[in-house]
Amino acid sequence: MRTAEEYMEKLFKMRKNVYYNGELIGRDDPRLRPGINVICETFNYAADPQYEELLTATSHLTGKKINRFTHIHQSPEDLLKKQEMTRFMCQRVGGCVQRCMGIDALNALSVVTKDMDDALGTNYHERFLNYLKYYQENDLVGNCAQTDVKGDRSLRPHQQADPDLYLRVVEKRKDGIVVSGAKAHNTIAPYADEIIVLPTRMMTEKDKDWAVAFAVPADAEGITQIIRISNPRPRQKLDAPYANYGSADSLTVFDRVFVPWERVFMCGEWQYAGQLALLFATYHRHSYTGCKPAVTDIIMGTAALVAEYNGVEKASHVRDALAELIAVAELVYGAGIAAGVKAKRAASGTYIPEVVYANVARYHAGVNVYREFELLAELAGGLPATLPPEGDFYNEATKGYLEKYIMRKAGISAENQHRCFRFISDLLVSAQAGVKQVAGVHGGGSPIMEKITIYGQYNIEEKKKLAKYLAGIKE
Amino acid sequence: MRTAEEYMEKLFKMRKNVYYNGELIGRDDPRLRPGINVICETFNYAADPQYEELLTATSHLTGKKINRFTHIHQSPEDLLKKQEMTRFMCQRVGGCVQRCMGIDALNALSVVTKDMDDALGTNYHERFLNYLKYYQENDLVGNCAQTDVKGDRSLRPHQQADPDLYLRVVEKRKDGIVVSGAKAHNTIAPYADEIIVLPTRMMTEKDKDWAVAFAVPADAEGITQIIRISNPRPRQKLDAPYANYGSADSLTVFDRVFVPWERVFMCGEWQYAGQLALLFATYHRHSYTGCKPAVTDIIMGTAALVAEYNGVEKASHVRDALAELIAVAELVYGAGIAAGVKAKRAASGTYIPEVVYANVARYHAGVNVYREFELLAELAGGLPATLPPEGDFYNEATKGYLEKYIMRKAGISAENQHRCFRFISDLLVSAQAGVKQVAGVHGGGSPIMEKITIYGQYNIEEKKKLAKYLAGIKE
Amino acid sequence: MRTAEEYMEKLFKMRKNVYYNGELIGRDDPRLRPGINVICETFNYAADPQYEELLTATSHLTGKKINRFTHIHQSPEDLLKKQEMTRFMCQRVGGCVQRCMGIDALNALSVVTKDMDDALGTNYHERFLNYLKYYQENDLVGNCAQTDVKGDRSLRPHQQADPDLYLRVVEKRKDGIVVSGAKAHNTIAPYADEIIVLPTRMMTEKDKDWAVAFAVPADAEGITQIIRISNPRPRQKLDAPYANYGSADSLTVFDRVFVPWERVFMCGEWQYAGQLALLFATYHRHSYTGCKPAVTDIIMGTAALVAEYNGVEKASHVRDALAELIAVAELVYGAGIAAGVKAKRAASGTYIPEVVYANVARYHAGVNVYREFELLAELAGGLPATLPPEGDFYNEATKGYLEKYIMRKAGISAENQHRCFRFISDLLVSAQAGVKQVAGVHGGGSPIMEKITIYGQYNIEEKKKLAKYLAGIKE
Amino acid sequence: MRTAEEYMEKLFKMRKNVYYNGELIGRDDPRLRPGINVICETFNYAADPQYEELLTATSHLTGKKINRFTHIHQSPEDLLKKQEMTRFMCQRVGGCVQRCMGIDALNALSVVTKDMDDALGTNYHERFLNYLKYYQENDLVGNCAQTDVKGDRSLRPHQQADPDLYLRVVEKRKDGIVVSGAKAHNTIAPYADEIIVLPTRMMTEKDKDWAVAFAVPADAEGITQIIRISNPRPRQKLDAPYANYGSADSLTVFDRVFVPWERVFMCGEWQYAGQLALLFATYHRHSYTGCKPAVTDIIMGTAALVAEYNGVEKASHVRDALAELIAVAELVYGAGIAAGVKAKRAASGTYIPEVVYANVARYHAGVNVYREFELLAELAGGLPATLPPEGDFYNEATKGYLEKYIMRKAGISAENQHRCFRFISDLLVSAQAGVKQVAGVHGGGSPIMEKITIYGQYNIEEKKKLAKYLAGIKE
Repeated sequence: MRTAEEYMEKLFKMRKNVYYNGELIGRDDPRLRPGINVICETFNYAADPQYEELLTATSHLTGKKINRFTHIHQSPEDLLKKQEMTRFMCQRVGGCVQRCMGIDALNALSVVTKDMDDALGTNYHERFLNYLKYYQENDLVGNCAQTDVKGDRSLRPHQQADPDLYLRVVEKRKDGIVVSGAKAHNTIAPYADEIIVLPTRMMTEKDKDWAVAFAVPADAEGITQIIRISNPRPRQKLDAPYANYGSADSLTVFDRVFVPWERVFMCGEWQYAGQLALLFATYHRHSYTGCKPAVTDIIMGTAALVAEYNGVEKASHVRDALAELIAVAELVYGAGIAAGVKAKRAASGTYIPEVVYANVARYHAGVNVYREFELLAELAGGLPATLPPEGDFYNEATKGYLEKYIMRKAGISAENQHRCFRFISDLLVSAQAGVKQVAGVHGGGSPIMEKITIYGQYNIEEKKKLAKYLAGIKE
Repeated sequence: MRTAEEYMEKLFKMRKNVYYNGELIGRDDPRLRPGINVICETFNYAADPQYEELLTATSHLTGKKINRFTHIHQSPEDLLKKQEMTRFMCQRVGGCVQRCMGIDALNALSVVTKDMDDALGTNYHERFLNYLKYYQENDLVGNCAQTDVKGDRSLRPHQQADPDLYLRVVEKRKDGIVVSGAKAHNTIAPYADEIIVLPTRMMTEKDKDWAVAFAVPADAEGITQIIRISNPRPRQKLDAPYANYGSADSLTVFDRVFVPWERVFMCGEWQYAGQLALLFATYHRHSYTGCKPAVTDIIMGTAALVAEYNGVEKASHVRDALAELIAVAELVYGAGIAAGVKAKRAASGTYIPEVVYANVARYHAGVNVYREFELLAELAGGLPATLPPEGDFYNEATKGYLEKYIMRKAGISAENQHRCFRFISDLLVSAQAGVKQVAGVHGGGSPIMEKITIYGQYNIEEKKKLAKYLAGIKE
Repeated sequence: MRTAEEYMEKLFKMRKNVYYNGELIGRDDPRLRPGINVICETFNYAADPQYEELLTATSHLTGKKINRFTHIHQSPEDLLKKQEMTRFMCQRVGGCVQRCMGIDALNALSVVTKDMDDALGTNYHERFLNYLKYYQENDLVGNCAQTDVKGDRSLRPHQQADPDLYLRVVEKRKDGIVVSGAKAHNTIAPYADEIIVLPTRMMTEKDKDWAVAFAVPADAEGITQIIRISNPRPRQKLDAPYANYGSADSLTVFDRVFVPWERVFMCGEWQYAGQLALLFATYHRHSYTGCKPAVTDIIMGTAALVAEYNGVEKASHVRDALAELIAVAELVYGAGIAAGVKAKRAASGTYIPEVVYANVARYHAGVNVYREFELLAELAGGLPATLPPEGDFYNEATKGYLEKYIMRKAGISAENQHRCFRFISDLLVSAQAGVKQVAGVHGGGSPIMEKITIYGQYNIEEKKKLAKYLAGIKE
Repeated sequence: MRTAEEYMEKLFKMRKNVYYNGELIGRDDPRLRPGINVICETFNYAADPQYEELLTATSHLTGKKINRFTHIHQSPEDLLKKQEMTRFMCQRVGGCVQRCMGIDALNALSVVTKDMDDALGTNYHERFLNYLKYYQENDLVGNCAQTDVKGDRSLRPHQQADPDLYLRVVEKRKDGIVVSGAKAHNTIAPYADEIIVLPTRMMTEKDKDWAVAFAVPADAEGITQIIRISNPRPRQKLDAPYANYGSADSLTVFDRVFVPWERVFMCGEWQYAGQLALLFATYHRHSYTGCKPAVTDIIMGTAALVAEYNGVEKASHVRDALAELIAVAELVYGAGIAAGVKAKRAASGTYIPEVVYANVARYHAGVNVYREFELLAELAGGLPATLPPEGDFYNEATKGYLEKYIMRKAGISAENQHRCFRFISDLLVSAQAGVKQVAGVHGGGSPIMEKITIYGQYNIEEKKKLAKYLAGIKE
């Protein structure tokens, strides 16, 4: 397993292919550091004996100890552990731990490559296992690039005016394939080692050229990352762990990128594109049953804290709001547990979380995101929106006034009051708050997508039969 | 194990102590039959080899096969089985299976009698185990009488104007105790063998006389049951399994009822009253994680059916509504699974469902009850409220008109359209619908009670610490 | 203006054409009386000098004083008065006052007959005014029969397997037309003088024969009413005004009914069918801005009462629930006021409520119906579902027990506690409760219909322009 | 009436007493300009003949034409006009128009100064009218400073550890009073001419020194403004009107500020403090019935636009979301109309919006704020959170890629797609978005405050009487 330092060392040597606001930047650009810090923690905690059991696993390929973020789930217990690890890590970094993406993609590939081989006589699974061994042994960090830019939403890939609006194979060579297109919303990509590309949807035969899956280094020739960085509002003096962690998303452009065959895991098998897309979604929604409760944990802890500082922690509307937040967190986490417990074993030996539970959990998280921010805003009052900037707390002309007038409950220092409200101001009233909201709705698939999956995967006919039985309808 | 016939045979021999709308009625009164039919199914399915594994268990006392409705949970698996059995049985009888009450009370007593003995040196647990053996061997049906009538809600038991407003010990004798008071909302009591009395709340030392738990036959001397029967609207000709199952609730008056010591399981140990009350609630809320999804199953199946009959099953608002119903059912069931998986073993060996998961599940069910009826009403349209009574469908003067004008989607007969809408009319527009709604909110404790439990049992301080950590607050 | 007695005298002489549960019944059947009682109050209050201003108006045709339920709105003030009258009357009869239907239909016809004449050179308006004069002078009670049974919901009238699934003209004669079909959900029809038939939807040219509007006596030859009666649960001794008022709905079958030309107000003008349908909906939804707040008034008053009786009226969750109910009632009523104030004058001189306000008000009422029942259920607790029937309160064997154990807050007699909970039990746990819920969703058009109207009638393009302006998008 | 230029000319001459992030800044600091731009528009549109009727009024004191933002409402029509003006102006500046604060405070003072004089024989009203004349003739811009910092929320003003935690009179002199304390959340203060101070709550006799109201120039001796600026994310090249408008909020510290008697409008009349606080709230909540619908207009217009650009504008979930947004906007606006129509005339001649309608409207707006952002986020998808910064659209290395891959619906240029999503990104994912959310909840009083007002001002006893009447309860 790598250390954080080794991860960064490799990272900083990569080819410069990341653009930010008009500049070509290095991966050692300080603005990327908050995102990198998040990934570093996944190495740090794995190296900490206290968290070893949670953060590491035993490779089913090599029997070696590996970072759990590179593990293929071999049992329901593995899924429960992964869920628990995700909640824990997201608590520590104050939000998305990001590294789940890659391993969710690999778990999905582990299943589908085997299924394809069994049905079609291809040999993707062996290739995949070789790649996986490399990934585990080098303790890599992977982005999953799934979402195409999609152009006109009412048209299929092959119907688009510009065929590149979905990523596709433009050339097949003896030694590999050449692909073009762009993938959007690629969190972690600017500081990932690898990019794992999956199809974004079900395909028809005419979409064959768009049914493609593979892995490439994140700085491979022909790849351009155009990114947006979402860091917390920087602090001047008032340090806070929260302020150290951020993220960046890439629009990843593939301009005739060559991929050698040993890294190609689907190429034209359009019948399996939908299954692969859905499987990644299932694993990733299962990840959300860990990360979203962590975000709710932060919101509820903060809400409880500000209620205490305001001296209203025993008010019934406060307890009501906290109980509502707990219910959201634990319904999502509880349904996630059910998804793990009821997981099914695929032909490859990989365990797949039960799809309905994974989806109702992610759905419930998704429809409550804005509500959670609303609850915190209600309890925190208006101050997060009007809190003067830090500088005024250090200027002699205003410092005294601010320290005098921020006082609330006896026994809580002005500094802690300040820290509390500065934190809430960053949580609620910042660009990053907007990112958390939008990502909370759309990340891993929005509630509307989960509803489609839930309805599509559920045995509703059996429930109609039940209704007919009770109503006395015979046919 | 008993048969349904044996159950009824014993039942019909009991002392007449049931009053209904001004009459003293026998337990063989036909108006009680729909409730009795529900209980009969718990014997019938247990006797059916196909359902044997689900409906029976092995007694940890005797090693014999027993009805699972008399079993003390010995493992998380037992809790998962019980949840599954409850959902299945409630589907078959179109609503509350009722028999869970008794066994939920016994599970709670199994834990608390042991804890009291360990702490106070009493010998309740042995008594309890003897009683349990009797209960299992005779395959009994038990009501749990917990809720006192409570008088002024702002006063404790000992502060009430009339001390009987909470049930209490009025006399202690050598051979037993004498109790007076009344317990409300006692579903199943008019056709139960036994009534198991538990305290309804936390008590203080001054409430000592009210801290009492025991079991008595439902027709014991001094007991008067004043009941309300809630049956489906009776059918004239259009038979439907749904119409065969109902329920009855008793206000059970205890007027100087004698209880021999061997049936007394708490008498004055006020410190344990709250724990016993909460434990029963936990088991019963866990039961709700099985029964409420079953009610949602019926509603969703019916909603899907009427959408099909109306020819709109593919409309997006229909799929949306169905997905919402599925999400309610499976979030409740999923969190119930988590409650089972994360169950803890008590000193007595009994497994206790994890309290937060049991409560968030019951809470989510409770806050969605009316919403579920609303969704069905939206999809069914206005006809359930204005459907002419059955008689008009058989009268030659009107029959033809009704069969002509009820036609909707081609291929669905007038009779099946009729059956479908008659069923929905009974589900939505009947006194029993109101019972289902009110019971869905309050049965087993209303959402407001679950919120109190959730908040009270959750480690919110740990979440505040998390917020402080991220905000950089040190103390 | 008529008296209640004169209304009934005429009613009881009508031809027997009402079927109920297999019987042909007279309009003097006691089971119809609760519905008739509602209508009687519209005569009684109009005759009461205290309410005269609210309940009467001046005919714009004759200058005579008329019952406001027969008035064509001549100003925004008329609309405000009608809304106020509706809320008041619904409070007095504990629910739907029913008589608004007829006058809402006539107001819609007053507008469209004029518009048709102006555009097409027909002479419907004069006919209509003659009929209106007759209606006002005889102080008639009218049902509006709009909703066709509709068969397959995905087909237009002319596409249905059976052409009668929408009511249509089957023959045109010199002296009038002959119509066949059936209209559903015709509240008030069994005790109305007249039935006013309107089209239920937009029509195409091929649906010409289905574009028809007219008025007939409710017992005209060829009309068969097949009804469902929805009365409150009957009381044995515990009288309550609420228990005196009910309703009945008819499936009204037209089997070759002859309508003389002077009573025909549309016959083939398919282009105006949609406008007429929508206009009736607009007037009727405006009526809902009066009646729905009255239903909320009853629910909130009852909720406040039971909270007082339970001794928890100062609890914050109680005040919260009451404030939520007030907000529902007054948002609906307030938007209804806006609909009146912003009303527009049609060519006929009739004022039309502003359509968006009328629809958002009805929509808000519709989406809150089940929520209002839920709030009352939450505050009332479980007793409404398990309250023993009245008879037990009069049986010497049980009376004492019930009066002892129903006691709650000091100073409230057992009888009043009984009255309070009996009332709530009827409000929440009865077939009529189901009718109120379903009618609250679907009556006058369900929320899904209002959303369609709101979206269709709103100037959303203007709002898109605003967005473009702010975003700097020029085209 | 002034021009925007005259307003700014006076503004830029004011004493420097505004601190921002550690600096003492001039009112001509460019970072204040977006806020100032908003105020300028209130002069510009008043000067535009097209909007003159809406933006100006006739002074009831002088008969002269004045800016409506300085007018005391003389009729219900004035209130309707003000509501309409507010919606219009907020649409033009893309959010809060800010200038309503001052005139809302003056309207409240116009009523209470008269009431105090009538009851107590003081002469505040004359003073007030003189000040008002000055305010109108100089076309001033006023901030209303109401909210005290409040310290420990469970203590009254006189009980606080530090008496300055509520602003108070520290000295009375012959020529005036001296005050100390601080007022929070003072939007507009850094670019207002005047600060109008009102009490924030009901007071007891012991809080007498805190019952004080007055007006001072915003740069008066002893006043320090410590501000937070909330501007839209700055644009590099892609101009958009939206990006020109912002706001700033001040924590306004009063350190022994002298106020001459002619500017003092309450001083010790603690009995009227609550009334004055509530009246300002009523006027300000009435203002919200204009501004909040404007914010919803922007959100719905943008949602409709992005749906069009994505090619899904006809999808039913899109229409559903838009109808929901319309319903929110128009229920709030409609109830605001009702508040105007049902306004009552005070002794001073000023019209007061009906308090319940003003509060249910503001309440409905408040509980829907986060929901509105959620709806826009749902329709816009994830791009607003990951859209690369502007710079990448101008860098030759990335420009082509971005313009290629942003293409969606045929016929919409890459630039307009860019403008659309950049705008949404600023609306949803920016610090200003957070300000809009928090201000939408708390500005003018949060929903919890409105619920208290609604419950407190409503005649709930009358509704209990109605329930008793229907239930047959006589007392």
